[in-house]
Amino acid sequence: MRTIEWDYKLNQLRLIDQRLIPSSFEIVAYEDYKQVADAIKGMVVRGAPAIGATAAFGMALAVFYSSAPDVPALREELERAARVLGAARPTAVNLAWAIERILRIADAPVDNIDDFRTLVLEEAQRIADEDVAINQEIARHGAALIDDGDTVIHHCNTGALATVDWGTALGVIRMAHEQGKRVHVLVDETRPRLQGARLTAWELSQYGIPYDIITDNAAGSFLRSGAVHKVLFGADRVAANGDVANKIGTYMLSLAAFDNTVPAYCVVPTSTIDLSLPSGVQIPIEERDQDEVLDIKFQGRLASPPGASARNPAFDITPHRLVTAFITENGVVNPPFEASLGVS
Amino acid sequence: MRTIEWDYKLNQLRLIDQRLIPSSFEIVAYEDYKQVADAIKGMVVRGAPAIGATAAFGMALAVFYSSAPDVPALREELERAARVLGAARPTAVNLAWAIERILRIADAPVDNIDDFRTLVLEEAQRIADEDVAINQEIARHGAALIDDGDTVIHHCNTGALATVDWGTALGVIRMAHEQGKRVHVLVDETRPRLQGARLTAWELSQYGIPYDIITDNAAGSFLRSGAVHKVLFGADRVAANGDVANKIGTYMLSLAAFDNTVPAYCVVPTSTIDLSLPSGVQIPIEERDQDEVLDIKFQGRLASPPGASARNPAFDITPHRLVTAFITENGVVNPPFEASLGVS
Repeated sequence: MRTIEWDYKLNQLRLIDQRLIPSSFEIVAYEDYKQVADAIKGMVVRGAPAIGATAAFGMALAVFYSSAPDVPALREELERAARVLGAARPTAVNLAWAIERILRIADAPVDNIDDFRTLVLEEAQRIADEDVAINQEIARHGAALIDDGDTVIHHCNTGALATVDWGTALGVIRMAHEQGKRVHVLVDETRPRLQGARLTAWELSQYGIPYDIITDNAAGSFLRSGAVHKVLFGADRVAANGDVANKIGTYMLSLAAFDNTVPAYCVVPTSTIDLSLPSGVQIPIEERDQDEVLDIKFQGRLASPPGASARNPAFDITPHRLVTAFITENGVVNPPFEASLGVS
Repeated sequence: MRTIEWDYKLNQLRLIDQRLIPSSFEIVAYEDYKQVADAIKGMVVRGAPAIGATAAFGMALAVFYSSAPDVPALREELERAARVLGAARPTAVNLAWAIERILRIADAPVDNIDDFRTLVLEEAQRIADEDVAINQEIARHGAALIDDGDTVIHHCNTGALATVDWGTALGVIRMAHEQGKRVHVLVDETRPRLQGARLTAWELSQYGIPYDIITDNAAGSFLRSGAVHKVLFGADRVAANGDVANKIGTYMLSLAAFDNTVPAYCVVPTSTIDLSLPSGVQIPIEERDQDEVLDIKFQGRLASPPGASARNPAFDITPHRLVTAFITENGVVNPPFEASLGVS
C-alpha cells in the first residue's frame, strides 16, 4: 500500500502510522481534517512530500464531512481547513503548496455540492499520483549519478514513507539498486526522532539493499576515511538561491562532505523549491518539544538527569555553497542555482 | 568522593560506575587487575585521564594481590598486568602513559616486597593527585578565555567523571562559573553512549551551571545562528602536529565551529599529547560493539529494525587546522602546533 491513501469505499484518508515503525505496522483512518492536522503535527506522517499530499486529502475530508448547505459555504469550510492544516508544521513548503493547489481548483465554477467534492478529491488524488510519478522521474535522473560499488550516506528518511510512494533521495538509491548497481548505504540514525534508524533502515531491509546504521556524528569520520562516494538527502524547502532547509544535521553532514570533496546531492521534487524566498534566512524553522531529545533510553536507562532541559530545532539551513547539485524530476540542476533553479 | 580512589584500609580500587549515571550512583570495588581491565573496556570508567589513573591503580592491585614470592617475580606480574591493562582500550594515550610511569618506577632498586608494593602504589597515587592539580591549572588558563555571558558547546564528558576529579574542558567551564562568569552550556548529547546527556548534564546540574542538551547534529545549527561563542572538548590523544583523536563527532563539531569562525579549544593535560606520532593518521581508532548504536529506545520503542547492523567508531580525528588552540596545564598553546606542542 501507499503511505497515504484515499479509501474510495469509506471516503476515509488512510495513513501508515510512522511513529510505530519498526515496532509495529498500523494503519490509521481519518474522517476529520482537524485530526489530520494533529497527525501531521504529531508525526503520524512526516516527510515534506508526504505531508503535502496528506494535507490535500485533509482538504478533501473537509468538504466530504462538512454539513455546509451549498458550495459557497463549502468553500468557506475549505478556507478554514486550509488555515488549520497549513499551520500544522511551518518548514516544509509542500504543505502550503498542496493546500494552494486545492484552493485554486476550488475556485472553479461549480455549484453542485457533489461535483465540488469530486473536484477537490480528484485534485488531491492528482497530487498524490503525480508525487509517485515525479519521484520515479527524479530517481531515474539520480540513479545515473550512482556508480556500481558506491557507498552513500543518507540522512533522515526520504523513502516511500516520506512521500506518497517510492521516495526522493532514497528513491534514487532504490532505482540504482534495481538497475543492478551495488550500493551500500550508511544510514544516519537522525536524532532526535531517529527516522534513519527506524524508517530508512526498515525500508532498506525490505528492498534488500545492504546498509549499516551510524550515529549522525560518525558521518564525518567515514567521509574523512575516503570510504564514502556520495551524500544524499531530501529537503523540506529550497530557497531561490539553493539554500536548503532539511532535517537537523544536514548542514553538518554536507559541510563534512564538502570538506572531503564528496558530492552532496539534494533530491527534491520542484514543488519543494520556494522561489518566493531569496535565501534560507527567510525559511521558518520549527522547534519541537524537548521530550524528543530527552525521552531516550540507552541500554534500558533514561539518558538524561531528572529536570534536564533541551533545545530541539527540527531543521537547519544548509547554505547552497555546500550543495553539489539538486536532483529534480526535470534533471540534475547544477550551480549557480540562482539561475538554474528558476528555470528547472 | 573522587571518580577513582584507592581505599587504604581495604587496599581496593573504588570506581564510580559511570554506566549507571544518572539513573543511580554506585561504587564498585576492585582487587583484581583483570577485572579493572574489564571495567575500562566495559566503560565502568571512561575518559582519557580517568582510565590512565585507573590503570595505574590497577597496576598497584597487581602487586598487592600477587602471590609472587619476591620482587623479580612481582616485576613479572606487573609486566603481565601492563599488557592486560594496556590492551583494554587503544585510543587514549593516557592509558599507556600511566602504565609506563608505573613500569619505570618499578625499575627502582627495591628488594623488599612491601617496599615494592608501596613504591608502586605511591606512584599510582601521585598520578591521581597530579591529575587533579593539573586539571585545576588547566582550568585557570582556560577560564581566562571564557567571557561573562558566553554560550559554549561542549562535547562528550570531560568533567570530574572523565578524570580523577575536576575535569578538563568541563573543568574550564566550572572554573569560569566559580569566578562568577555567567556561562550557558549547550551539551552535545554525544551518541552513541550519550556521555553528554547522561554525565555532563548531571555534573552541570550539580554545579548549578545552566545548560540545554542538544542532539549532536544540532550543534551546527546553533553555531550558524551566531548564538555560540566557544566550542570546548577534550582529547584521547593529540599527535605532534596537533591532530586530535577524541570522541566521535568532534571532527564535525570543530568543522562547523571553523565554518562559523567560532573558536574551538581542545583542553588536555600534556600527558594526552603523544609526540611520538607525527600526525593523527597513526592514532589507532577503536570500533566498539554495534549494540551501542542499536540498543536505544525512543519514546519507549526500539529504534531500529530486527537484524539491523551498525558501524560504531568510538573516536574520530580532528585535523589540527580546525583547532584554534590547546589549553594545557602549561597555558594556551597556539598554532603552529608542530613547534608549540613540543615545547609546551
